[in-house]
Amino acid sequence: MEILKKDSQTKARLGKVHTPHGIIDTPVFMPVGTQATVKTMSPEELKTIGAKIILSNTYHLFLRPGHELIKKAGGLHKFMNWDGAILTDSGGFQVFSLGDLRKITEEGVEFRSHIDGSKQFLNPEKAIEVQMALGSDIVMAFDECIPYPCTYEYARKSTDLTTRWLERCKKALVTTDKQSLFGIVQGGMFKDLRKKSAQDITQLDLPGYAIGGLSVGEPKDMMYEVLEETVPLLPENKPRYLMGVGSPDALIEGAMRGIDMFDCVLPTRIARNGTALTRYGKVVIRNAEYAMDLSQLDPTCSCYTCTNYSRAYLRHLLKADEILGLRLMTIHNLHFLLNLMEEIRQAIREDRLIQYKKDFFSDYGYEK
Amino acid sequence: MEILKKDSQTKARLGKVHTPHGIIDTPVFMPVGTQATVKTMSPEELKTIGAKIILSNTYHLFLRPGHELIKKAGGLHKFMNWDGAILTDSGGFQVFSLGDLRKITEEGVEFRSHIDGSKQFLNPEKAIEVQMALGSDIVMAFDECIPYPCTYEYARKSTDLTTRWLERCKKALVTTDKQSLFGIVQGGMFKDLRKKSAQDITQLDLPGYAIGGLSVGEPKDMMYEVLEETVPLLPENKPRYLMGVGSPDALIEGAMRGIDMFDCVLPTRIARNGTALTRYGKVVIRNAEYAMDLSQLDPTCSCYTCTNYSRAYLRHLLKADEILGLRLMTIHNLHFLLNLMEEIRQAIREDRLIQYKKDFFSDYGYEK
Repeated sequence: MEILKKDSQTKARLGKVHTPHGIIDTPVFMPVGTQATVKTMSPEELKTIGAKIILSNTYHLFLRPGHELIKKAGGLHKFMNWDGAILTDSGGFQVFSLGDLRKITEEGVEFRSHIDGSKQFLNPEKAIEVQMALGSDIVMAFDECIPYPCTYEYARKSTDLTTRWLERCKKALVTTDKQSLFGIVQGGMFKDLRKKSAQDITQLDLPGYAIGGLSVGEPKDMMYEVLEETVPLLPENKPRYLMGVGSPDALIEGAMRGIDMFDCVLPTRIARNGTALTRYGKVVIRNAEYAMDLSQLDPTCSCYTCTNYSRAYLRHLLKADEILGLRLMTIHNLHFLLNLMEEIRQAIREDRLIQYKKDFFSDYGYEK
Repeated sequence: MEILKKDSQTKARLGKVHTPHGIIDTPVFMPVGTQATVKTMSPEELKTIGAKIILSNTYHLFLRPGHELIKKAGGLHKFMNWDGAILTDSGGFQVFSLGDLRKITEEGVEFRSHIDGSKQFLNPEKAIEVQMALGSDIVMAFDECIPYPCTYEYARKSTDLTTRWLERCKKALVTTDKQSLFGIVQGGMFKDLRKKSAQDITQLDLPGYAIGGLSVGEPKDMMYEVLEETVPLLPENKPRYLMGVGSPDALIEGAMRGIDMFDCVLPTRIARNGTALTRYGKVVIRNAEYAMDLSQLDPTCSCYTCTNYSRAYLRHLLKADEILGLRLMTIHNLHFLLNLMEEIRQAIREDRLIQYKKDFFSDYGYEK
């Protein structure tokens, strides 16, 4: 990646990540399109709010509709009509989230499908095969996501397994499509394991590195500490991706610690539950207080929703179970986060990220 | 309305209906936006598929979010961000559909809300008051929709009640917004009652007339017979609106019998259930046969859905309960019907509606 500018007071950096489907300005937030669609959104709407890269999911697409179909369709970009960049998660996180429904061995993971209970198997080779069929621009390694809390011994063994699996992933990725494999640093909340993981996987000289196993229930301060320990161990000139993080405060804190890429279902999920992210904090639009409120959702926002509709109309749509309500809330929340990232990039460009954070947290109502 | 052209072999006519929110080319199909939104669609998408007028509903908006709120918002157009024309149904049909939950008297109808069971009351004056608050371009009279089957005696009394209510509606509509009141011909399936109803209500010299109480379970041939008897009793220079009809065959048959306006929830409802209307008949996209079908939904269609997505992708979205699937199916079905109406208008313009019907029915697979 190109590093255009570094913030002088923090570890934040302004960059560009090149992919076969476009150049991504970083730090970037990637909307999540688990099942080959960012929930409620059309590709054109994603472009309108400024999305250049989205995330999709190996686990889900492997089970339904199947990667063979998507390959036959010419890859995931064509199948879902998205010509921007796509990063695909490996399925590791989803498989491990199944709990008792899966069994991990050196070879891989046997699990039961959440859709029909059928017996399935994923391992590094299979996860890469699926992602080659999908044709994603950025391919994530098949890893084990360590739960929190977790014993040192479990974390140590698991982290080493993730490293051995990464070597298998690298061998398995044989592609002419310029797909980039990202390795994933694990190690739980243990500093020495994080350090060993980072050292082991960076030896493979991959095009990018992710930090996994955070935002899994640990206190936020612990996450920030792990980031402060781990990020400096990753190469300067490669993108750093913090997986599964997307609250406004964590995006700013992450960027300040040198993270370039983020993803999270939070903005789209809470949108569908009727909660808007706004400059002045969350607005639970279903609440009775908004029933007669004809003002715009976020007075500082220029998105399609805020430009054309009132809080009362949004509330009406949600109360009446109308799909347009879910669409409008999703457009707003994603626009809000992508705009936040643009503001973060601008603040880095102008060397005032610390001040930006202070102002944002004050408006939003964060305590720190 | 302006009549631009009459078909020489049928009663069909090509026209223009002027409203405060634009000129409507007729025959026209009006998408239904019951709760101040055409389900799944944005106003811009409605415009893209060529919609100039939509239908919304007094009953639903009266109960939720309430017409006072919509009035405060500057009317329904502003509330829902739709600057095209709006016709509002009076609530009559919905109230009578409540069955045991309502009681009809000369004064009006007492009923229980389908939302919270609360006791409510609508009568001609209230239905008009609500529609004045909504600011709809075309205001429907508050009528009683006669069920099928029904005794002659019930139909006779009910039809006379509808006429008396229409007189009250006309008196109640005091507006500076150029809202047009349409009366509704009732009379059940009885020719003499239809005739009396048409004669009685046309004496009120209203800007338009609807034919209600059809497509309520009677055989289609019976509906066409009633149309053939009733339409000639309506004034030549006023729009004629056949309420609640929207299957492709009935749109063609209705236009041939001199109908100018139609509405129906069918295309949007079956879209959400996974059924597409296409030139070659219905396609139930959820069916397993489309799982690997990468062809377009309707090979003759130029809509956004058919241009950009495959049957297999649509099926995947619907199977995975993804909202984009409901959106894409709705866009297609509405585009299909609005395009069908454009083809009907073109056929009238070129005096070849009979041939058009023959070709369409042959492609679609209708028996007659």
